[in-house]
Amino acid sequence: MDLKKYLKEKCQLVDDSLDKFLPKEDELPFSIHKAMRYSIFAGGKRVRPILMLAACEAAGGNSEGAMTAACAMEMIHTYSLIHDDLPAMDNDDFRRGKPTNHKVFGEAVAILAGDALLTEAFILLSSLEACPSIDPLMRLKVVSEISRCAGSRGMIGGQAVDMESEGKPEIDFATVQYIHTHKTGALIKASVRAGALLGGADKKSEAALVKYGEAVGLAFQIADDILDIEGTTEEIGKDAGSDQERGKATYPAAIGIAESRRRAAELVDVALDALSCFGEKADPLREIAKYIVKRKS
Amino acid sequence: MDLKKYLKEKCQLVDDSLDKFLPKEDELPFSIHKAMRYSIFAGGKRVRPILMLAACEAAGGNSEGAMTAACAMEMIHTYSLIHDDLPAMDNDDFRRGKPTNHKVFGEAVAILAGDALLTEAFILLSSLEACPSIDPLMRLKVVSEISRCAGSRGMIGGQAVDMESEGKPEIDFATVQYIHTHKTGALIKASVRAGALLGGADKKSEAALVKYGEAVGLAFQIADDILDIEGTTEEIGKDAGSDQERGKATYPAAIGIAESRRRAAELVDVALDALSCFGEKADPLREIAKYIVKRKS
Repeated sequence: MDLKKYLKEKCQLVDDSLDKFLPKEDELPFSIHKAMRYSIFAGGKRVRPILMLAACEAAGGNSEGAMTAACAMEMIHTYSLIHDDLPAMDNDDFRRGKPTNHKVFGEAVAILAGDALLTEAFILLSSLEACPSIDPLMRLKVVSEISRCAGSRGMIGGQAVDMESEGKPEIDFATVQYIHTHKTGALIKASVRAGALLGGADKKSEAALVKYGEAVGLAFQIADDILDIEGTTEEIGKDAGSDQERGKATYPAAIGIAESRRRAAELVDVALDALSCFGEKADPLREIAKYIVKRKS
Repeated sequence: MDLKKYLKEKCQLVDDSLDKFLPKEDELPFSIHKAMRYSIFAGGKRVRPILMLAACEAAGGNSEGAMTAACAMEMIHTYSLIHDDLPAMDNDDFRRGKPTNHKVFGEAVAILAGDALLTEAFILLSSLEACPSIDPLMRLKVVSEISRCAGSRGMIGGQAVDMESEGKPEIDFATVQYIHTHKTGALIKASVRAGALLGGADKKSEAALVKYGEAVGLAFQIADDILDIEGTTEEIGKDAGSDQERGKATYPAAIGIAESRRRAAELVDVALDALSCFGEKADPLREIAKYIVKRKS
């Protein structure tokens, strides 16, 4: 299959839907709606929504039915980036090569725009007009899965421990694992599981897809750590080498770059293995797993 | 009826449930869970959850079935206070007589604790273990109502316009109305409507309760504006007169204190009128409406 074409097509569908679902800039409060749209359309790769759509297809479903949840997931991911970039948090001026939200709109608007994107995700997930065909109990399960993975025991926990570990002299591998599986892994896993649920996966397929999601989520973050060292500032859209400079708890810092690369490759194998009982409908997921550790941005 | 006793009993039930539902302090991430609990148990009056329970009872339901949603509402209210108090927003050092969240835990933890409380509300609302007896479609409707009222077209919109209006030489009455009906009114209305839905209200009763909620929500904020001028710092738990000092867009600033008091009283009448077709089960709602404009804190 042509992964590049697949990603481009899905990315366009996600972008169109996000544009449709997000409040317009000419609606009050203007500043917040402008700031929400700025960060949503600042060049994200839409990894999480595409994984959700692909998991839905792998489970035998029609990915259209997963589009609202896929967009909700991208809103949650984007809110987390806006808040992580704030001066009180990672204090980043650039993200994907563009000024961060608070640099453009100020801190107060950035905080509220993040809050609004998180809330908008749940408006969308619970909207009875968007995708009325999906069974209410299933929708509730999706809200439950996504909120749990985004909460303090998921993504927020990862970000909190990440911040608290910054600059510590000793980098403990268990802590790095906690950060990676929570900060990045949780939302990626939730994306795949929600796609599986919405695609009508049975228990066995769901478990296999969750295993795939966990492996891919961790591989994605390890690849990110490696890119921060080996990529150029232009490629990654933010200052290269910034993790090391800040004393971030990363895989390369804990176990070295060669071992990190080996583990990432191993995780791709685990992800592919998990898909062994699926046919060609899972090819996009297979290609995405391989792409995730090879990408340059 | 004895309102004081009613409020005390419901407050205790809400507090017990919040304690049960919130993640424990000895669970990772410790800092976030500690900060979440700090602000939740910093002396809130539980106005929104109690209104939800009382609306559920007025509609003929058992308020136990509304307890998870009532706690979710208090989590959303508390997150909004934590974020509003941040240095980039209202920059408040005290809230209810205690240091604000960021003064105790630092800005980064305060931002994440707010994010986590908002997310936790949706974890709770979608949890299949909490209150499994409620129909999934009804639960989805409650998620939809609460998320819409908390989002950019609701509470967040009110806070954004409030901030943007601060210190402006001319205070436009339409803007004050937008701020009050959104910033405070939206969540209070959502509390009453969610209670009505969970109590099994028919369309007519639901509409009457929503009318009550809208009137009470606005009256509550006007009373708050008046308290800021006439209350002592000790009574209101924050610096008295701070609205005027900051040039906040308030009812007294726009139409004077006497007219503000008259409108608040008028809104209480509207609220009581809306309840005319309800029997004594709505007595708590009636007493709360009268109390809201008479309270001293």
